[in-house]
Order: sequence, then C-alpha cells, then structure tokens
Amino acid sequence: MNVDGLIERVLERSVAGAEVPGSPPLLGRAIRHSVFPGGARVRPKLCVAITAACGEGRGMEASAGAGAALELMHCASLVHDDLPAFDGAATRRGKPSVHTAFGEPIAVLAGDGLIVMAFETLLRECRSAPEVLAPLMSILIEAVGTPRGIVAGQAWESESAIDLSAYHQAKTGALFVAASMSGAAAAGLDPAPWRALGERLGEAYQVADDLRDVLLSDEELGKPAGQDASLLRPNAVQNFGVAGAITRLKGLIAGASDSIPDCAGAPMLREIVQGQAARLMPQSLLRQVA
Amino acid sequence: MNVDGLIERVLERSVAGAEVPGSPPLLGRAIRHSVFPGGARVRPKLCVAITAACGEGRGMEASAGAGAALELMHCASLVHDDLPAFDGAATRRGKPSVHTAFGEPIAVLAGDGLIVMAFETLLRECRSAPEVLAPLMSILIEAVGTPRGIVAGQAWESESAIDLSAYHQAKTGALFVAASMSGAAAAGLDPAPWRALGERLGEAYQVADDLRDVLLSDEELGKPAGQDASLLRPNAVQNFGVAGAITRLKGLIAGASDSIPDCAGAPMLREIVQGQAARLMPQSLLRQVA
Repeated sequence: MNVDGLIERVLERSVAGAEVPGSPPLLGRAIRHSVFPGGARVRPKLCVAITAACGEGRGMEASAGAGAALELMHCASLVHDDLPAFDGAATRRGKPSVHTAFGEPIAVLAGDGLIVMAFETLLRECRSAPEVLAPLMSILIEAVGTPRGIVAGQAWESESAIDLSAYHQAKTGALFVAASMSGAAAAGLDPAPWRALGERLGEAYQVADDLRDVLLSDEELGKPAGQDASLLRPNAVQNFGVAGAITRLKGLIAGASDSIPDCAGAPMLREIVQGQAARLMPQSLLRQVA
Repeated sequence: MNVDGLIERVLERSVAGAEVPGSPPLLGRAIRHSVFPGGARVRPKLCVAITAACGEGRGMEASAGAGAALELMHCASLVHDDLPAFDGAATRRGKPSVHTAFGEPIAVLAGDGLIVMAFETLLRECRSAPEVLAPLMSILIEAVGTPRGIVAGQAWESESAIDLSAYHQAKTGALFVAASMSGAAAAGLDPAPWRALGERLGEAYQVADDLRDVLLSDEELGKPAGQDASLLRPNAVQNFGVAGAITRLKGLIAGASDSIPDCAGAPMLREIVQGQAARLMPQSLLRQVA
C-alpha cells in the first residue's frame, strides 16, 4: 500500500473543497499554499503506519482521515504561529509564509478554516466506520484545544511564568500522542497503550528541532534560524548543550522503539522509528558538532 | 423547561474545561471573557426552541450541545473579527475586546481554542445520542468553514470583487441556518425543511445589524458604531435607505414565520419569531427614524 499517496489524496480532497465555485478565491489559495507542498507529513504517516501494524487490515480509511486531520491542524498552527503577533516569520518551508503572501486577515482566516477542515476531513473519512468517529474526534480535540493541546502550548508563550513541561508537551508532544493513539483507535483498539510512543517521538522531534534551530542556517531550515534565542524561547540546546541534547535525542528514540505495544507489525514499526531517527539526526547536522 | 439556564450550563461546562490546573491561565481567562456575560444567545435559543417544538421530547441535550457549539463559534468569530487585522475594535458588548484586554497573541489563540471547544461541546453533549453526532457535526462544519461558512464570509472582505449575496449568506446567515437545521437534526428529524427559517432570520438579523450600525451610538451598541461606512462594508441602509431597510426587515420576519414547518410546537415558534422581531426593531430605534 502506498501510504504517502493515500494521505496526499485525502488532503487534496479536503483542500479542493475550499476552492469550489462560490467560495472566496484568496482563502482557498492560502489554504492550498499552507498544505502543499507539505513537510515530511510525519504525523499522518505515523498514524497510518500504526493502523497498518496493529489493525489486521481494519480502519485504514479512518486512519488516513485522522492522520490528515492532524496534519491540517499542524498546518493551521504553523500559519498562526508565523503571524506578526507571534514569530513574525516571513518564510516557511522555503517559501513566503501565508501572511506574507496573502496578508494578515487571510492568514488568520486560513488557520481558522484549516481547523474546521480538520474536523470535516475526519467526519468524511469515517463515513464507512462511524463507530470510530467519536473516539478519534476526542483524541483530536485533546491534542489541539485547551487545556493541553497545541493552542494551549502556544498560549504558554504569553505567560510570565512558563510551565516548561506543560509547554513542550502541549506544543509539540500533543500531536504526536494523537497520531499514535489515533492509529490504534482507527482500528477499533484501545488507544491508551500507544500514548508512550507518541510522547517519546514528540519529545525527540522537539529536541531535534531545537538542535536545528541552533545549528542550521535560514536557508537550510527554509525559515528564520535562531528564533528560539531571539524570541527567548526555551530550547534543549541551551539547557543541555549540543552534545547533551544529542544524547537525549538518542535516548528518546530508543525509548520510543521500546514502548511499541506487541502486535503483528511491531518489527516494522521499530524500523520506521529508527528511520525517523536517521532523518532527525542527519549527517550534515552531526558533522557540524563533530 | 428553563432554556436559558440549560444553554448557560452547557457553555459554563465547556469554558471551565479551559481553566483546569495545568492550563495556561491567560488563555482560559480570555475565553471566559469572550463567552460570559453573553449577548442574546439567539442562535442556541433558536436551536433549542426548534427541538422543543418538533422533537416530541427527544434530543434536548444534543440540541443544547449543538446550540452552545454554534454560540462558541459565534464568539470565536467576534474575537477574530475584532483583531487589528480586521475591524480593530477596542470594545465589544460594552467591555474591552479580547485583544485589548489580553493582547493579540492570546486573542488569536482564544479564537482558535473556541473553535475546537465548539466541537468538544458537541461531542460531549451527544454522548447519550451518538446517532445525531455526525449529522450535527456536518451542519456545524458547513456553517463555519470553507467554502460557505463564517470563515469564508469574513474572507470575502479581502477580495477586490465581492460576491454580496455569498458574503451575507456566509457571514451572518450560515449560523442561523445551522441553528435552525440543528434543532431538527438533534431530534433525529430531516433538517432540510428547516433551512428557510434560518435563512430568513439570518437575513433579518443582518438588516437589523446594519440599521443599528447606522442609527445607534457607540455607547448604545457597546462597540464602535458606523464601522460599515468607515470600513467600506456593504450595508442594507446604504442600499435601501432607512425606511426601505425597515420594510425589508418586516418582510423577512413575516417570511420566517411563514416558513416554519408544520409540527406540534409551530404556534409557539411563530410567537418566538415575532418576539425576536420586537427585539430587532426596538422602540428606541424606531423613534429615531419617525
């Protein structure tokens, strides 16, 4: 099965829904700009890989829907985080950020529209498995909203006293936890045993992101580098140093691999996690710290 | 049954969920600020009144959930519409707007959080009637998202050529249509025959709003008056004159009343619609045009 193709098709179907005759054209273009071409699509790929591993053939459609919904939420958060009121980032994924290309009003609305589109995608892709809609919706809401989702994570940046663990867990961890748990829930399984995998992967991504923010250039990142320092944001490299952060990253990847619940596809999932590790610690990055 | 109390309790339960220990405090306060004390809660009241009228006792809980979800979406749209990138309104409902009181980042996030909270509310209040979750979710999504919901309505303001009918239908009509259709869907009935009632009420509210924007002072409105003219927004009074707009408003109310499908509670609903008409055309406003 071509997982990448499956996810892209679901995303395309959703985005095309904002471009039908009678809809405001700029909004549709801004939404497409923020979703395509995508980043690595790690969250939806993780979700679908878990369903394939543990679902015995069930729930692939709902899983792709849940994964795409998480990706749309991720895109929404990037569009709003880039706004002048937050990071004020002029570029994203090597092209102009949405507010730079389409103006601030359309960027606010594109983010709003993407949040709604995420729920729309989940509803549509669960049509043939209505019994998993409520569990998947519940996981999605927990990952995104208040009190502990990405919206809450971003809101910690406006507090004078920041709860660091709550901040990271909400801002980066929540969507990985949701991806992992949704993969099981889409197959009709109890999602709880899959939480730890998402938590560890989420933290690994956060540490890798912190490393890249410090070590790479604007061009290599496709967005402004050094933002954590200039925005006084907490960063693992500041806390542990570069070598310490790399050690931590390796430990998190090993822990993620160990946490995978027993199932038919567990060996395949462990391979995927190791593959992600290679992606997170590319040679070019390791060379810089050698 | 105390409909007002029912709706306020559902809203309170949702807002309190953003204030639990471990959640970022400013975000929770901003969300409470934007939901309480409320406006007239016309959308949720309409929704619940329709369920009471046609549901033969079924679906009241789901209806209050759907109505509260629409109210939260309405609050989200007000918070984002007030942002400097849109209306830049310093006040709302006679108190500081959310970005004025809490800053722009928290206002963006409060709007985002309210959108997610709307879906959370619907999911929670449909627990005892899971069969109406998908239909109600579908109605909610159509009312809010792209291509024809309030997000799309607001996005028309960024277009150089505006589709006036699509603009009004999306910006104001969509939530009334959703309130009306959700009232029927919560009771397990076909929502389609209830669309016309929502469309006409929505247009009546738009015309009444346009009249108030032109005729009332900042103080009477609780927000800046004359914004349509200063922001070059389409306004029924500019198109038809004050007397013409009032005639149009009366016609829409009569049409709304006539469109109510036959059901046990139809006479009660007609009374509610007439009561709304009195609220929309208060004596103080009519005196000014006498």
